[in-house]
Amino acid sequence: MNKEFIDKLISNDRRTVARSISIVEEGNSNATDLLKEIYPKVGNAFRIGITGPPGSGKSTITNQLTKYYRTQNKKVGIIAVDPTSPFTGGALLGDRVRMSEIGQDENVFIRSMATRGSLGGLSKKAIDAADVLDAAGYDYIIFETVGVGQSELDIAEAADTTVVVLVPESGDAVQAMKAGLMEIADFFVMNKSDRPGSEQAVASLQTILMMRNHDEKSWMPKIIKTIASENKGIVDIAEEIKRHRDYMTSANFFLQRREAQTINRIKNIVENKIKEELWSESGEKLLNSSIEKVVVGDVSPYHIAEEIINNFKNRNRLNN
Amino acid sequence: MNKEFIDKLISNDRRTVARSISIVEEGNSNATDLLKEIYPKVGNAFRIGITGPPGSGKSTITNQLTKYYRTQNKKVGIIAVDPTSPFTGGALLGDRVRMSEIGQDENVFIRSMATRGSLGGLSKKAIDAADVLDAAGYDYIIFETVGVGQSELDIAEAADTTVVVLVPESGDAVQAMKAGLMEIADFFVMNKSDRPGSEQAVASLQTILMMRNHDEKSWMPKIIKTIASENKGIVDIAEEIKRHRDYMTSANFFLQRREAQTINRIKNIVENKIKEELWSESGEKLLNSSIEKVVVGDVSPYHIAEEIINNFKNRNRLNN
Repeated sequence: MNKEFIDKLISNDRRTVARSISIVEEGNSNATDLLKEIYPKVGNAFRIGITGPPGSGKSTITNQLTKYYRTQNKKVGIIAVDPTSPFTGGALLGDRVRMSEIGQDENVFIRSMATRGSLGGLSKKAIDAADVLDAAGYDYIIFETVGVGQSELDIAEAADTTVVVLVPESGDAVQAMKAGLMEIADFFVMNKSDRPGSEQAVASLQTILMMRNHDEKSWMPKIIKTIASENKGIVDIAEEIKRHRDYMTSANFFLQRREAQTINRIKNIVENKIKEELWSESGEKLLNSSIEKVVVGDVSPYHIAEEIINNFKNRNRLNN
Repeated sequence: MNKEFIDKLISNDRRTVARSISIVEEGNSNATDLLKEIYPKVGNAFRIGITGPPGSGKSTITNQLTKYYRTQNKKVGIIAVDPTSPFTGGALLGDRVRMSEIGQDENVFIRSMATRGSLGGLSKKAIDAADVLDAAGYDYIIFETVGVGQSELDIAEAADTTVVVLVPESGDAVQAMKAGLMEIADFFVMNKSDRPGSEQAVASLQTILMMRNHDEKSWMPKIIKTIASENKGIVDIAEEIKRHRDYMTSANFFLQRREAQTINRIKNIVENKIKEELWSESGEKLLNSSIEKVVVGDVSPYHIAEEIINNFKNRNRLNN
């Protein structure tokens, strides 16, 4: 990476930012070089995770919140992680609405990432992209993810404040709980709160929250009611984010959280790199040549796995 | 593993089966030994994946299907993978109903596995447990999983026939699609089909299915309507499973699928083992001692990751 490129990135040159995120998405050694180089400039942005089931209104909330932060003259980066299958087009439509509303603003940067075909490395790439936006001087970075799957939980956990968006639909809270969302929420948004059943949904969510054990943290997740499509409750979300941010800072939890995030992130980088090396040419070849024996029942998968591991270790020995 | 233990397992001694699955769940070198040893006896069971959102009636369908197979004098093993948080108790209740209905039958073996705290290694453990039941002579093995998250998709994909259960609730099909369930379904069950909106739900699911590209396989997933709580449609499920099984066998797809499954499984075993070694004492120590430097911004996570990888490779060199 030459200095000019980095300088342009840091001064928020849009094409350079876009190019940098593409490099990070490709995830080769260029990406590693870039991320190492910009790291001293990273750490000033506040990262917000907005997650919840499909149709809960995450995109609308993200858009409205972005508009609110723009009135305060803050720069906002959005990383939308979208697991939609290629044949639906649903997300595409949402993207178009988004682009016409906030996409023209020089101080808003939006990037969509698809989960299809990139599972596993996705959380790493989303977090790397946030570093790029952070270095480029964005004040707020919003991760928008559908709350299904481990890699999406990983992304949500990489945020400084994680917001879980639900709607009054019956069973929604239970589903969120089963998907592991309850554990990561710093607060909840009950969106579309003008719908029937809204009060009951809030009450049952409240009950679930009370059942949880709060020995360690004195932070109790609130439930904010919104009608995002009418811009109702957006300021309340922004204020609750601020309240959580202040709480984290004052109690020194902020550092703890960043430490936990850093541990996760390094593990993620290491494991991805090792996997890459593992399944490079010779590992993949050994695997493919052994499948037949396992399928017909001659050799157990555990035998082949051992062979592959030994082969990997020997390769490392020879390369060192 | 002594021969007596293996013999007892193969003759379906219940205590030995239970003990074997516990060994497999612990996942240490005993597990590997056991799985290697029983592998020649594995491969006769037919594996069925039953997956879908919480509340869709998967457990009821599994129970009814089990009762049906018992009327045909087939032995049935059930591996229920349950991501419920410890504080809900929902699954526990379901388990009690299940135990009173089919749990007393000598030729039905039920095992629940929790996802909490074991994410990542879970699909490996569930598949290993299926091998144990397979070796013990169970004719059908049913994986019952909530359709959220990668490791549950992995389990569903480890089945010979994968059934996705939905209910008429609006948006259910779209949610299933987003979670990646459409891609893995060999057929669908629309349960609780006496509820309002059932016909529309079937129709919209049908539309989504038609939109998909079917160039490779000529198999078109059907939608079976059931009311599992009244035992309606269960025979239809069993017949569709048989039809799919016959199709797979006749067209030689069965072998292809087993090959793909074997590749996934070996990769899974290898990656778990490598991770274990990676984060053993010295890797973890190196990680923890470096966190501070990353958090304050002195060193990038990528620098530390490189150090950890090099350390891991050097360890292998010294050990070899």
